[in-house]
Amino acid sequence: MPKDFSLGELAVRFGLELAGDPNTRVSHVATLAQATPGSLSFLANSKYRKGLRTTRAGAVVLSAADAESCPVAALIGPNPYLSYARIAELLHPESKAVPGVHPTAVVSPSARVAASATVGPLAVIEEDVEIGERAVVGPGCVVQRGARIGADTRLVARVNLYPEVVLGERGLVHAGAVIGADGFGFAPDRGTWFKVPQVGSVRIGDDVEIGANTTIDRGAIGDTVVEHGAKLDNQIQVGHNVTIGAHTAIAACTGISGSTTIGQRCLIGGMVGFAGHLNIADDVMITGCSLVSASIREAGSYSSGMPTVPTRAWRRMVAHLRRFGEKER
Amino acid sequence: MPKDFSLGELAVRFGLELAGDPNTRVSHVATLAQATPGSLSFLANSKYRKGLRTTRAGAVVLSAADAESCPVAALIGPNPYLSYARIAELLHPESKAVPGVHPTAVVSPSARVAASATVGPLAVIEEDVEIGERAVVGPGCVVQRGARIGADTRLVARVNLYPEVVLGERGLVHAGAVIGADGFGFAPDRGTWFKVPQVGSVRIGDDVEIGANTTIDRGAIGDTVVEHGAKLDNQIQVGHNVTIGAHTAIAACTGISGSTTIGQRCLIGGMVGFAGHLNIADDVMITGCSLVSASIREAGSYSSGMPTVPTRAWRRMVAHLRRFGEKER
Amino acid sequence: MPKDFSLGELAVRFGLELAGDPNTRVSHVATLAQATPGSLSFLANSKYRKGLRTTRAGAVVLSAADAESCPVAALIGPNPYLSYARIAELLHPESKAVPGVHPTAVVSPSARVAASATVGPLAVIEEDVEIGERAVVGPGCVVQRGARIGADTRLVARVNLYPEVVLGERGLVHAGAVIGADGFGFAPDRGTWFKVPQVGSVRIGDDVEIGANTTIDRGAIGDTVVEHGAKLDNQIQVGHNVTIGAHTAIAACTGISGSTTIGQRCLIGGMVGFAGHLNIADDVMITGCSLVSASIREAGSYSSGMPTVPTRAWRRMVAHLRRFGEKER
Repeated sequence: MPKDFSLGELAVRFGLELAGDPNTRVSHVATLAQATPGSLSFLANSKYRKGLRTTRAGAVVLSAADAESCPVAALIGPNPYLSYARIAELLHPESKAVPGVHPTAVVSPSARVAASATVGPLAVIEEDVEIGERAVVGPGCVVQRGARIGADTRLVARVNLYPEVVLGERGLVHAGAVIGADGFGFAPDRGTWFKVPQVGSVRIGDDVEIGANTTIDRGAIGDTVVEHGAKLDNQIQVGHNVTIGAHTAIAACTGISGSTTIGQRCLIGGMVGFAGHLNIADDVMITGCSLVSASIREAGSYSSGMPTVPTRAWRRMVAHLRRFGEKER
Repeated sequence: MPKDFSLGELAVRFGLELAGDPNTRVSHVATLAQATPGSLSFLANSKYRKGLRTTRAGAVVLSAADAESCPVAALIGPNPYLSYARIAELLHPESKAVPGVHPTAVVSPSARVAASATVGPLAVIEEDVEIGERAVVGPGCVVQRGARIGADTRLVARVNLYPEVVLGERGLVHAGAVIGADGFGFAPDRGTWFKVPQVGSVRIGDDVEIGANTTIDRGAIGDTVVEHGAKLDNQIQVGHNVTIGAHTAIAACTGISGSTTIGQRCLIGGMVGFAGHLNIADDVMITGCSLVSASIREAGSYSSGMPTVPTRAWRRMVAHLRRFGEKER
Repeated sequence: MPKDFSLGELAVRFGLELAGDPNTRVSHVATLAQATPGSLSFLANSKYRKGLRTTRAGAVVLSAADAESCPVAALIGPNPYLSYARIAELLHPESKAVPGVHPTAVVSPSARVAASATVGPLAVIEEDVEIGERAVVGPGCVVQRGARIGADTRLVARVNLYPEVVLGERGLVHAGAVIGADGFGFAPDRGTWFKVPQVGSVRIGDDVEIGANTTIDRGAIGDTVVEHGAKLDNQIQVGHNVTIGAHTAIAACTGISGSTTIGQRCLIGGMVGFAGHLNIADDVMITGCSLVSASIREAGSYSSGMPTVPTRAWRRMVAHLRRFGEKER
């Protein structure tokens, strides 16, 4: 049974102005279109303002500029998306894991698991692993020799940490993520490849989220690093000896080749490809599906890629480009 | 020991015209090149007709237009690829799973598992999960709290369903798929990111196939939806609140950003990137490696991307484009 | 405690010229910047030669051309990266797995597991599987019916082999890889899709490395093949009936559509997309993020993709291309 809250309580707790009845109660979040009188909704972008007209929400979190268009109760503040997120967290709290080691988990006697931590069913915890206070290792995870998991970090399920990988505190790692596999390093040897030992590790800072099936390789020499507060979406590939700066957010399917350094507070779109050994400045934004083949020295927005057009038009565009490619200069 | 069938039986059962001896028997499928007299082969595209010349197949499934080029017995129909597929299913039936819960599986007492369903070794079934008739949860799967799996759906192995995810009937989910992880939602908060709770879920219709290591995120508010009969290849990423229409097929490595809706019966190539909040009409075809950054209102074929050329020519193409980029207007 | 070696021993063992004190001892590898007197470092690319100036390494492996710039002991040879890799392997040996089957593994009585092989905790080995001498199946792996793993091959953790898949000797497969899932094959059937049985398998040669979360589909008819010595990075997708030639190396996130054949000794960059049914010659190099939509008949370097520019410039480039697309001819 979800707990409900009055709009008066929410206004006070989150520092919002209330236009409407403080005794109205909401118990859950919903979109403007699907909301009912017990729902809290939000409008973060005025572009979607017309959705207000027909909403049946109990209340909407929005900015002062949109408040007069709101036909129901409004909770008004300068950053409605953030205020919405905070209220949503209150209305829909995470269920707490029960501390303890499940009897089907396989835990090395040399592992140090905090008494307040949780190790789920069928997880494997190898020798010399350390698991911090209130950390959660979900079902089917494999945490290899010497890896360390900080306090309050949660591995949801079927996550794999290779040996010696270090995760900070308050992190969240989604199912299928693999952290610390060998980087892709081979030396040519008379027509074959000789494997270059990947002797570094991976260090992940605090408050980092890592998406489902994302892979982060261990360093060749020295470590691969993800700094505090970075957010990585699903199916991202991070090569060996990459550094991702603090509070940088990277959307799904992006790939970062080895030894590239991405600055702080960057916003990287989905399916972006980075060549190796690049330096990307702080506060760089890169739109989705771009190919980054050179370093970027200045903050700003960068793009590449050809947007989709009808296939017939595309054939003409390609023919045009080919002519320029064929010309010798 | 595979069962074999006479060409006469196959012609009758699948409504095909037979040119050849009805008593010839075939036991398995093979390519035209590798076929032996016990093999059934097929020719679906006349472009590859010359492969008929040297085939040693017992019989070939093909169209009337290609029949006269066939030096061996022919099973003739208007849709040879479909007829081939139906015969292949007969010759190579799936092995049936044995009903029951493996003793090493960890199943919550509150889960409802149909007596005809199979739960494989080392699977985890959490509280309040429902598993339908004849459904199969393969080895190493993790099915979290309250998820529901429809009748005759099979999770091959190491699949992860997050809480409350709903799968329809007759589905097939390949190894490593993750359904229902958190969408990528963060509100900016004075230089850091505040996690937006992802309180929706994922609903998958009937007859849906989901490829290996594909990820489908749960909705932020409201659900992510995959409609009946859609087919998703490997390593696809589906963002929160995406809808994929009925009978749409999507090739591998494609990524779909949040809140995009794709229509019915679309054909989406591999490694296509979709921006968020788009609407793609029914019956749209998009060729591989395209970047879809705007809605598509009309059925038809769409493309983008620059095909590969020798690297020297490519450098000239890029230089040409850059000049146009630099010009101020 | 790592073992250490004198520079004299290393010079003799690896056929290198030594400039410096043969009694100096090194115990581990480090980058030029982070090295201490017990470290061995290397310089493979003269472009980074200035890193030598301030290094405190015990010794640096490098070429004769760079030797005179080296302020510390030098181990000199014609292929310093390869020599470095061989020494790194000596200094940082892999820990050996302990032979035997972990008591929590679920092993079919009909599986044949070599006495010298290792099966880790919570692995599943189905009926008729064969596991060769000294092979290692790590924690949480699922090896399905009839799959075969050659001698000295290691599946690190949570790897999935579908039925009948064959891996060669001395291979390495990283966590989350899925080998042998169904190829993406459906025949249109009056507005719906009929699944085409995928009755082939996957054959992987000797000395192949396969990265984390990479997926290799089984053949539709006939097998998908990866030849000896090929190296596949993370999150690669290999479609049904693809062949990857011997000693070809493919970087992360590349996708190869069905029935494409890639030659021997190719170098394929990251996030490259290959259409289906192509033939790529031996010794082809393709730069990252290229779209390969036609066969490549000749060795050489090929590219596509538009490098990233400031978003304003990119808008002008796109507008220019669109004009060429709109022109009818």
